[in-house]
Amino acid sequence: MSSLTPIKGSVTAPQGFMAQGVCAEIKKKDKKDVAVIYSRIPGSAAGVFTTNLVRAHCVDLTRQHLADGQAQAIVVNSGNANACNGEQGRADTLQMAQAASDVMGIEPDQILVASTGVIGQPMPMEKVEGGIWEAVLTMSRDGAHNAALAIMTTDLMVKEIAVEIEIQGRPVRIGAIAKGSGMIHPNMATMLCFITTDANISSECLQNLLKASVNRSFNMVSVDRDTSTNDMVLILANGLARHEVIDDPGAADYQLFQEALDYVTISLAKMIARDGEGANHLVEVRVLNAADPEAARVIARSVVSSSLVKAAIFGHDPNWGRMLAAAGYSGAEFDPAKTDIYLGEVQVAADGTGLAFDEAAAVEELKKENVIITLDLKAGPHQATAWGCDLSYDYVSINADYRS
Amino acid sequence: MSSLTPIKGSVTAPQGFMAQGVCAEIKKKDKKDVAVIYSRIPGSAAGVFTTNLVRAHCVDLTRQHLADGQAQAIVVNSGNANACNGEQGRADTLQMAQAASDVMGIEPDQILVASTGVIGQPMPMEKVEGGIWEAVLTMSRDGAHNAALAIMTTDLMVKEIAVEIEIQGRPVRIGAIAKGSGMIHPNMATMLCFITTDANISSECLQNLLKASVNRSFNMVSVDRDTSTNDMVLILANGLARHEVIDDPGAADYQLFQEALDYVTISLAKMIARDGEGANHLVEVRVLNAADPEAARVIARSVVSSSLVKAAIFGHDPNWGRMLAAAGYSGAEFDPAKTDIYLGEVQVAADGTGLAFDEAAAVEELKKENVIITLDLKAGPHQATAWGCDLSYDYVSINADYRS
Repeated sequence: MSSLTPIKGSVTAPQGFMAQGVCAEIKKKDKKDVAVIYSRIPGSAAGVFTTNLVRAHCVDLTRQHLADGQAQAIVVNSGNANACNGEQGRADTLQMAQAASDVMGIEPDQILVASTGVIGQPMPMEKVEGGIWEAVLTMSRDGAHNAALAIMTTDLMVKEIAVEIEIQGRPVRIGAIAKGSGMIHPNMATMLCFITTDANISSECLQNLLKASVNRSFNMVSVDRDTSTNDMVLILANGLARHEVIDDPGAADYQLFQEALDYVTISLAKMIARDGEGANHLVEVRVLNAADPEAARVIARSVVSSSLVKAAIFGHDPNWGRMLAAAGYSGAEFDPAKTDIYLGEVQVAADGTGLAFDEAAAVEELKKENVIITLDLKAGPHQATAWGCDLSYDYVSINADYRS
Repeated sequence: MSSLTPIKGSVTAPQGFMAQGVCAEIKKKDKKDVAVIYSRIPGSAAGVFTTNLVRAHCVDLTRQHLADGQAQAIVVNSGNANACNGEQGRADTLQMAQAASDVMGIEPDQILVASTGVIGQPMPMEKVEGGIWEAVLTMSRDGAHNAALAIMTTDLMVKEIAVEIEIQGRPVRIGAIAKGSGMIHPNMATMLCFITTDANISSECLQNLLKASVNRSFNMVSVDRDTSTNDMVLILANGLARHEVIDDPGAADYQLFQEALDYVTISLAKMIARDGEGANHLVEVRVLNAADPEAARVIARSVVSSSLVKAAIFGHDPNWGRMLAAAGYSGAEFDPAKTDIYLGEVQVAADGTGLAFDEAAAVEELKKENVIITLDLKAGPHQATAWGCDLSYDYVSINADYRS
């Protein structure tokens, strides 16, 4: 991936995209809460959605609008999830697409809709529509940062990224914005990510590329168990980079784009993982040499999500037993008595039993901003990585350093 | 169950039992950390254990000692879990049984061993053995409260209970002590419960009675995802009530004992659920009219465990959408669009959509010490109840009242 270059900007870095974020007063406070992302021409589009049985109305509508694999714009509001609102909710989501359609001058089914916020409250549609009009009428290549701000709820950090790669000798860009947090933040279980690219890709390939990328990135972030009603990752690919279409999963270009897309989604996933009130560390859990890929994923997620592990990292306590225990209750099959554990470079357990490791060196590893925990299962060729943060509620400080 | 009478005391309330708890200095602070429970004669015994793949050495030994369905005593330490300690850990657990055997004058395989505390640290066996000797030499009918204290780690409340019922015209007693917490308490994921009774029950029936009771009580408490390496529920039944043996699951006496045992375990489960730093409410989630019993259980647990639901209760925010969403990601099949939701007596949603309910009345329901949430799935005849507490970390107060 030597040809990947991080660049400034986000969703308007690729050619032909404009964006904006405005205050529509859906939120009580004076914060931006409506965003639009728009491509000058329609193109391929794909999406990955929440698996919650309870889905916001925008999830159903956006799926429907993606049925033909084409879209030209995304309209988003924060402050109200428009979920569990019955017939009125369905009508309001459709009205968001219609309002954007009216002012953009494109068909409603070219528009994808996303929402985040409280569930079961009526949408203040006058404000939402006003916001959509204002955002569309003022959108520009400079509006991407405002769009990133407008999709945040209680996020502490704005999450945006852009990269450039070369495909068939032409520069191709991918940009993205996201919202979400790795801590238990009551108001922001929802994870949203909007990706743009000027790559030329068939919609079928785009869907597969996105799905694979989300599995390696956002789906490996510990964000509590609370899967939102509104989780959504969308990508628009308008083809303005004008290389020959990528439509073969076996082609080198396909792999090149996958790697660049993974770089974008994994970078945003890490930003989400580390974004939390009081979080001091980004925690990365690597599971090596698992017998099957799903076991590796399940164990990595279980360890990074364990409150006991997170509290131990907050307290810089090399309590590897909690890591092994979290693997043990993950539901995945493995042999604890074969498992080696490392904190950074320091091996702390071999074959499921503690080593007489250098305590000070292990503590140093846990003091790093990026803490890396490795479980080597010694059972097969598969691996997985998951991300989270430490658990640094004040009250935890009482208990975090149990062993000393 | 009109004949059930709550009585004072705990594990020494039934005839023929003695107990004690002492300070052996396994914990750093001056706290009790070794407990024994002893029956004057051997009797039926049964146990239910952690499902974690990573098991403490005491889990394996105690299972082994229960293979014949007989036991006479329990020895417990807190402060060290003796888990992931390899060969030495196995030897140390065996030595705990041996030390108790030496001073009690009974066979080691009559003794069940439990531990709770830090994982992967060598057991300070000199202290542990000293504690066992002291506890056995001073045990009495008055020592039960000390035993309850000695199994605690960071529990805020001592958990003990005893009841009396009548079987075949004779008084029969059940007593129990427990430890554990419904909050995310880094040091105390382990749930321990020790039950004694002077009922006369075959060991096979005792095992079935205990398993059914644990499924309705401790397994329905939200105690974080962190299933401990050391979780254990044990029961000793010495038969000294001298009624005819209960050995038929179809008999009325069997059912009577089951109900009394359920009363004991559910009472302790509620104490565990409400025990947590800053917890203000015991939360009870009832799922009614589910299509199958497992769906009812899974949904009840998912709702009571949701951080978003717990934070909403802390903030007295009748945010029923979070409850429906938590049911939605539980993994159980149900129809959100048929689900009714009640906060106490106040119906807040019908057929998956919000009602124009009396907000003040709903808030009052959430201010009660015991908050009751009901989800009526209107799909079948099955029901389940789960218990937890609100999420009242200080930082949550910032976010809990999102809607106002």
